[in-house]
Amino acid sequence: MSSTNLKPAQIMPLHGVLPILPTAFTQDGAVDEASMRRLIDFELEVGAHGVSVLGFMGEAHRLAGFERKQVVAASVDQAAGAFPVWVGVLAFGAAGAIEQAREAQQLGAAGAFVAPPPVQNDQAIFDYYASVAEAVEIPIAIHDFPESFKTLLSAELIARMGNEIAGVRYIKLEDYPVLAKMSRIQRDAPDSIGIFGGLGGMYFLEELQRGSRGVMTGFAWPEVLVAVYQAFRAGDVDKAAAIFDRYVPLIRYEFQPKIGLAYRKHVYRERGIIDTTFIRPPGMQIDDYTRAELTAVIRRVGFDPGRAGVQPVG
Amino acid sequence: MSSTNLKPAQIMPLHGVLPILPTAFTQDGAVDEASMRRLIDFELEVGAHGVSVLGFMGEAHRLAGFERKQVVAASVDQAAGAFPVWVGVLAFGAAGAIEQAREAQQLGAAGAFVAPPPVQNDQAIFDYYASVAEAVEIPIAIHDFPESFKTLLSAELIARMGNEIAGVRYIKLEDYPVLAKMSRIQRDAPDSIGIFGGLGGMYFLEELQRGSRGVMTGFAWPEVLVAVYQAFRAGDVDKAAAIFDRYVPLIRYEFQPKIGLAYRKHVYRERGIIDTTFIRPPGMQIDDYTRAELTAVIRRVGFDPGRAGVQPVG
Amino acid sequence: MSSTNLKPAQIMPLHGVLPILPTAFTQDGAVDEASMRRLIDFELEVGAHGVSVLGFMGEAHRLAGFERKQVVAASVDQAAGAFPVWVGVLAFGAAGAIEQAREAQQLGAAGAFVAPPPVQNDQAIFDYYASVAEAVEIPIAIHDFPESFKTLLSAELIARMGNEIAGVRYIKLEDYPVLAKMSRIQRDAPDSIGIFGGLGGMYFLEELQRGSRGVMTGFAWPEVLVAVYQAFRAGDVDKAAAIFDRYVPLIRYEFQPKIGLAYRKHVYRERGIIDTTFIRPPGMQIDDYTRAELTAVIRRVGFDPGRAGVQPVG
Amino acid sequence: MSSTNLKPAQIMPLHGVLPILPTAFTQDGAVDEASMRRLIDFELEVGAHGVSVLGFMGEAHRLAGFERKQVVAASVDQAAGAFPVWVGVLAFGAAGAIEQAREAQQLGAAGAFVAPPPVQNDQAIFDYYASVAEAVEIPIAIHDFPESFKTLLSAELIARMGNEIAGVRYIKLEDYPVLAKMSRIQRDAPDSIGIFGGLGGMYFLEELQRGSRGVMTGFAWPEVLVAVYQAFRAGDVDKAAAIFDRYVPLIRYEFQPKIGLAYRKHVYRERGIIDTTFIRPPGMQIDDYTRAELTAVIRRVGFDPGRAGVQPVG
Repeated sequence: MSSTNLKPAQIMPLHGVLPILPTAFTQDGAVDEASMRRLIDFELEVGAHGVSVLGFMGEAHRLAGFERKQVVAASVDQAAGAFPVWVGVLAFGAAGAIEQAREAQQLGAAGAFVAPPPVQNDQAIFDYYASVAEAVEIPIAIHDFPESFKTLLSAELIARMGNEIAGVRYIKLEDYPVLAKMSRIQRDAPDSIGIFGGLGGMYFLEELQRGSRGVMTGFAWPEVLVAVYQAFRAGDVDKAAAIFDRYVPLIRYEFQPKIGLAYRKHVYRERGIIDTTFIRPPGMQIDDYTRAELTAVIRRVGFDPGRAGVQPVG
Repeated sequence: MSSTNLKPAQIMPLHGVLPILPTAFTQDGAVDEASMRRLIDFELEVGAHGVSVLGFMGEAHRLAGFERKQVVAASVDQAAGAFPVWVGVLAFGAAGAIEQAREAQQLGAAGAFVAPPPVQNDQAIFDYYASVAEAVEIPIAIHDFPESFKTLLSAELIARMGNEIAGVRYIKLEDYPVLAKMSRIQRDAPDSIGIFGGLGGMYFLEELQRGSRGVMTGFAWPEVLVAVYQAFRAGDVDKAAAIFDRYVPLIRYEFQPKIGLAYRKHVYRERGIIDTTFIRPPGMQIDDYTRAELTAVIRRVGFDPGRAGVQPVG
Repeated sequence: MSSTNLKPAQIMPLHGVLPILPTAFTQDGAVDEASMRRLIDFELEVGAHGVSVLGFMGEAHRLAGFERKQVVAASVDQAAGAFPVWVGVLAFGAAGAIEQAREAQQLGAAGAFVAPPPVQNDQAIFDYYASVAEAVEIPIAIHDFPESFKTLLSAELIARMGNEIAGVRYIKLEDYPVLAKMSRIQRDAPDSIGIFGGLGGMYFLEELQRGSRGVMTGFAWPEVLVAVYQAFRAGDVDKAAAIFDRYVPLIRYEFQPKIGLAYRKHVYRERGIIDTTFIRPPGMQIDDYTRAELTAVIRRVGFDPGRAGVQPVG
Repeated sequence: MSSTNLKPAQIMPLHGVLPILPTAFTQDGAVDEASMRRLIDFELEVGAHGVSVLGFMGEAHRLAGFERKQVVAASVDQAAGAFPVWVGVLAFGAAGAIEQAREAQQLGAAGAFVAPPPVQNDQAIFDYYASVAEAVEIPIAIHDFPESFKTLLSAELIARMGNEIAGVRYIKLEDYPVLAKMSRIQRDAPDSIGIFGGLGGMYFLEELQRGSRGVMTGFAWPEVLVAVYQAFRAGDVDKAAAIFDRYVPLIRYEFQPKIGLAYRKHVYRERGIIDTTFIRPPGMQIDDYTRAELTAVIRRVGFDPGRAGVQPVG
């Protein structure tokens, strides 16, 4: 990876809260650019440090190639350099991954977070990331999420990729036991790979305490994550912990595999940010009972589920 | 399943909090019966409604046959009929499962919670549970936990087994999205299968609100679960929610796949109940940093990590 | 699927031997169109009834989107309507699959053989195939190959898709026990889905006897398959069996999971059809010993490994 | 492993054809000891160099503990030291595996072939085999069969276990690409681990040429394997190849995953060796058409499906 001719958002060392955005659809299932732009505006307003589009929660696997372009182009355009837009890459092989990463770069993405290939072989995985990283100038984040991608990445392999592949700069770490794995990677590659948490923000506080740079996750109340991050960075761990613990009941509720996306699209629509809760099949929907259940949890932690705009945290 | 000649603990309709007990070992790795008996005493003191031994968290898959007998016999003897002892069954095929379930019955177990066979075929799964249920007189609980057992059980199949197999009376439900699945099973088999939650107690409050009978899980502070359950059964949902939310940061921390057992053995030893934190290989251990991290979470919710005895909840 | 305005190769009812072509590469790993065209010429010369490109053995998962187009366009152009060119479709979701199938149609493919989505849910699989079939006018073949795609398709589901989705017309069946499954599908969907074998041709004779329409497989001596097919269709089962049995030692040798592609590229190069044995990583290569071992088997069945052109079978 | 006080069959260096025996059942599904004894007699008559019981094809996973003992005791007793009886070990953890291996030793088994634990971690797998090998005096064979056991064993790990664990002496190798893997293990552990093939005998000739000691497989016409082995050991490779190629159509037919056991029980019953074709659920059965299809293949290679006794090969 060369560092010449990069836009400002592409060279800033990554840190903070980079929400994973859902892909918004119209009621008939097309990509809804207007809602995507409102999501970007909301994350800017909330104080997020960037956004991540086309992740697993962004239903990237359910988009056609031309739709990928739509989402990235609209997001980059709306962000207008105010914060970095990271783009997910998921492919069956290196050629497809390179094609996606190059396209992201051309469209102005600040970086690409790349799912591993569907092959359980350390050298093959290393070569895959090396070939993608060498094909682009933007930094690469490894997306370590075996629950969705099935491929296991050992801490040793991740550290080795961080140390030996120039373009591999970050990891989005979502493999249990996540805290122990984070510490092992840091021990073996202390200066060469920046770690971001995920997993809905479930262990965000402990991740920060162990040295993570931030979080990339889809929790639909990013103001909580921003507040925890700011308190922590200001040196007030007790305040960070108090905020985190207060909202954990909601973080926990949203973070339910397979159905979390439906919760989050519901929240974003109730908050007036996206127009519909449409999810492409075979994604799960939620029923009236569940919507009421979710609303009750939102109220219990002190949020107003139907109010527009960023809400106070504390 | 005939209902004649059952002991009192075997006929009581199951409900409430039935902690999954770890199997305690001595420092050289043998089953530690004295610690097992102290675990039983602690659960009686805490007001648990029963216990579950030889589950996945009980390292049943790491025990020899003679050790299974030790654990069950000591637990049943120590419980002395004061509450039911449920026993986990995990086998490669029906003959092995029947052998284990019969042995549990002979040793005085109140019921058996049975992992599905390693085969992805609805009729084969139905026949498996039917053959085990027909071979014993104690009730059977289906253990629906695909993360560990790999076999997927649809809500339809579970309801059908509840409706058509007399001995299948309960389910320990740990498949995402757990709340939606619970409601679907209840709709299709409202009177024939009682549902228990698991998953570390992460969704215990919402499970109770949707009609679960209780929880079977390994959370090492069962006084919390008992308090939530009692408030809920007394009709005070707000109190139940307040207690639950207060302790969710700890519930969440303990509930980390692959490493949760190490947390829990550490807690039980600090609480003076078991003698060692020995885990059979390839189980994960925790380091000093992690022990301090866990201690901090325990303190934050208001518990004293090193005090013996049941602690106040509120 | 409407049947208007289709080219001749697109309406001919599919039958016979449709070899799965490897994707040929130059020594530096680019798609080698000249070699692809020679493969097409060879299959025409050999009397094949069509070809299948971009299958699993065609390394489709290792190609970029622009390379897919190259392979399909060159193959269709070289075939020039003399026989149908079928194109493989493999995607993470329906939108991507539709995009690929439409592109294949536009480039003149006669049909698309479509891998199942990575989701184990019958209705979701049905909807996936229905959405692809409805998006194009060319016929669709289900590719039932769980060893590579991990998704299990029951015989009932396949029959239902054949009966209820107009555009789903064929299946490439490679799931054990393949013969029993073939008969079950035929019983439940006798007139609505044509069955092709695969699996290297290992059970080609028995498949024909059970009513298959032909075979889609990568065996690098397609003259054998054509000879068996012709004898069988001429009513001379004994002759078909004698030919088949004579060459089974070679069919068996080539049909080794993970390494078969390397064998076949070696054979095609030795036969003067493709220029290199290049395989994209992480594909396996073969060593000198293995090349000699393969050569010995080729000689034992009576072929000349280094001679150009179609070789006599008998 | 100490080598003192071993019976003759326990110290003979293992080589040759060791058929994997099916477990014979009576019509009501109980273990049929009389048929097991006739299987032993048949293998002695056929010139096999030993037998393997309680393998995957022996339905070991469908037996209770007391039935395992029955099968081993009857087999050892009937063999009467004339050839070694190897016993399969399959468990969820080391304690269970040790219990099974010790029992096999006590009952007179010559060795144990041990399935890997269900954990994908090299050190954990190493420790598993080390703990079993150290717990018994009989030699251990690694059973490398990921299709059934799901655990992947790298060639490096296998060589390391052969080199470093005294009791690990053999491997039953059934992982593709089997021939390449065999050569890599031999290169890295040339004197410390003896390799046996499996996979139905599909690559038996090439395995012998690459240095295997023999084969452990369930092919129901072991006279073929014995004849190939004898010709090869006598230095007549051409004769060995001619015999092998002649019977490959039958070897291929029998070797169909999931349904091969039903074929083989049918053959053994037709040959008058076992009383029933009973397979425990959820094992697959075969229908009349399939029985006729199998019979046709048997006749084509020159065998008489209904004749008792060892049949001439050539």
